[in-house]
Amino acid sequence: MANISLDQITEPTLLLNEQIAKANIQRMAQKAQRAGVHLRPHFKTHQSWQVGEWFREVGTTAITVSSVKMAQYFARHGWQDITVAFPLNRRQLPQIQELAQQVTLGLVITSSDDVAFLREHLQTPVNIWIKADTGYGRTGIKAEDIATLDLILNELKQPSAHTFQGFLAHAGHSYKARGKEEIAAVHQQTLDKMRGLKERYLGDWPNLQLSIGDTPCCSVMEDFAGIDEIRPGNYVFYDLTQHQIGSCQLQDIAVALACPVVALHPNRNEVILYGGSVHFSKDVLPLPDGNIFGLVVPLTENGWGEPLADTAVVSLSQEHGIVRTTPALMHHFQQGGLVGVLPVHSCLTADVARSYLTLTGERLEHLSGIVL
Amino acid sequence: MANISLDQITEPTLLLNEQIAKANIQRMAQKAQRAGVHLRPHFKTHQSWQVGEWFREVGTTAITVSSVKMAQYFARHGWQDITVAFPLNRRQLPQIQELAQQVTLGLVITSSDDVAFLREHLQTPVNIWIKADTGYGRTGIKAEDIATLDLILNELKQPSAHTFQGFLAHAGHSYKARGKEEIAAVHQQTLDKMRGLKERYLGDWPNLQLSIGDTPCCSVMEDFAGIDEIRPGNYVFYDLTQHQIGSCQLQDIAVALACPVVALHPNRNEVILYGGSVHFSKDVLPLPDGNIFGLVVPLTENGWGEPLADTAVVSLSQEHGIVRTTPALMHHFQQGGLVGVLPVHSCLTADVARSYLTLTGERLEHLSGIVL
Repeated sequence: MANISLDQITEPTLLLNEQIAKANIQRMAQKAQRAGVHLRPHFKTHQSWQVGEWFREVGTTAITVSSVKMAQYFARHGWQDITVAFPLNRRQLPQIQELAQQVTLGLVITSSDDVAFLREHLQTPVNIWIKADTGYGRTGIKAEDIATLDLILNELKQPSAHTFQGFLAHAGHSYKARGKEEIAAVHQQTLDKMRGLKERYLGDWPNLQLSIGDTPCCSVMEDFAGIDEIRPGNYVFYDLTQHQIGSCQLQDIAVALACPVVALHPNRNEVILYGGSVHFSKDVLPLPDGNIFGLVVPLTENGWGEPLADTAVVSLSQEHGIVRTTPALMHHFQQGGLVGVLPVHSCLTADVARSYLTLTGERLEHLSGIVL
Repeated sequence: MANISLDQITEPTLLLNEQIAKANIQRMAQKAQRAGVHLRPHFKTHQSWQVGEWFREVGTTAITVSSVKMAQYFARHGWQDITVAFPLNRRQLPQIQELAQQVTLGLVITSSDDVAFLREHLQTPVNIWIKADTGYGRTGIKAEDIATLDLILNELKQPSAHTFQGFLAHAGHSYKARGKEEIAAVHQQTLDKMRGLKERYLGDWPNLQLSIGDTPCCSVMEDFAGIDEIRPGNYVFYDLTQHQIGSCQLQDIAVALACPVVALHPNRNEVILYGGSVHFSKDVLPLPDGNIFGLVVPLTENGWGEPLADTAVVSLSQEHGIVRTTPALMHHFQQGGLVGVLPVHSCLTADVARSYLTLTGERLEHLSGIVL
């Protein structure tokens, strides 16, 4: 296939290296197989039916999403087993009802009221997961809060169209880890708490399952004994945040934002890119020398190279990205030129990019770029 | 007209109070008239042809945008005089050429090379502004850098299809000001530097104009003597950042993101909203007690009320917003309920919201929500 023509890129454009993404997809599928755990990848990072097809190629049949809208989108593209890993949004009951008629739908609840609500208002069967908090502290019932868990499980014993599936957790505090040892500590905590829940409730619920899944733990760990399902998502593209955590190598990052160079300030070693917070979103990577919003990579017709040393996007306004570099590297930047930027948080950058351009010149869809 | 039905809001939805926005629009138009300065409002905040019509009602005929794409959009909607207040992106030359044939187009340059590039490659006449840096330090030629300015102005003396319009500055460092006194200091600095440029170059360029424009200075200051044009934009909606700076009152904020309540954590006075970084973007407001991402307002069929005391969005993940409140105010939040959130940065929130819902139930377009 032909390579992309960089000349045709006139605005900030999210480049996607299909080979890297496919390798990331395959590596996780192989790990899940090795560990004997079911992989239900999270599709919120890519939100693209075409990228979804790359998962089918490695045998994926069940997926995770983080909104009803995403579930509708992937259901339209033939996915038949979808868990919405986000607390039940009661206001979307009609859409949930419709989805439940089309696919095997998993929902996440955080209260016994939610269970009663679904029993009373949703006729079509769904699978219910209790959101368990294994230490992240964002949402869900703390694994130690047996009183609340008992209350919910009692509610689940009422006759209902729905099936209690088990406990679902997201160890999002792994994002604060740096390096394998700290990731392992978070993972062990999750394993211990989830296994504890299974032991406690397996007598009453012999089919009870455990679902966990964050990209750092799933990328770095090998032991998932006792866990039934993992739901990592970001690993399809990775990003600088995952690299800082230790989930990936820089060469595993599958997306880079191509940005036109519009102004040069050699007197202060700064460069202005067309590429701002509406193109990257505004997640930040804290480094010892200050916050950065991306690393700069040279672009060729074949993709991108290693990040330029001592060079980073140090500030974003709405449309401007400000790069700080060194005198020796200023020659990489020319007015009218193009550079790539590895993003801090690929999920958010893809969401505002609204589509992808592969290195073979193909435009791939992102849910945020289509009109429903 | 009928009011909106809150029952119909099932997902994060950007509410727009048309009355507040129109009052903001009118107030700035009156101030510009009083000050005898031409108002060329920046449309990057709203990016909506319908909101643009509200500016026509107060006599606006000339606008500012921050990308060629925005210029194309507003040109399609009948705007005939458009300045792209962003450093020239040479890669969009064909689009610029086409635009220049349709409207009176202003472009911003940052180097003598840019001048030569336009002279050699762009046949259709445009107005050229030199980007001047009056202290912000993002981009443009420092007002003190006479050597570089002379170089650019010499280049502009070459016979060309284009017209040198004058100096354009954005005193973005006003965003670091807190209160009228600090805003006034930034404004005075800008006035002094810009007037100095006019004095220096008016002999050679008798039609030379000065264009400035940031919402804090334009909202708070009254003296624009010597300035020909102002280009504020954010004032159409304002936001919590502008409120913190001192540009507006809380009741001048014209947009609020309606967010479903999906989970409650009364034991730690926290609430989970459906509304995360893909709905707000991720700009942050630093406060003495920590960073916040929005203030919570109760919603009624008529709009929103005052922010709840000691209550804020304290964290965002991709789809989750975490609110911290007090025991006494937990009753404002119910699973399945709806609250409003005043955004930290309305430009970015509008960009990811992709459309508006007015309080009379009308959907208004945002450029980011349409497929070109």
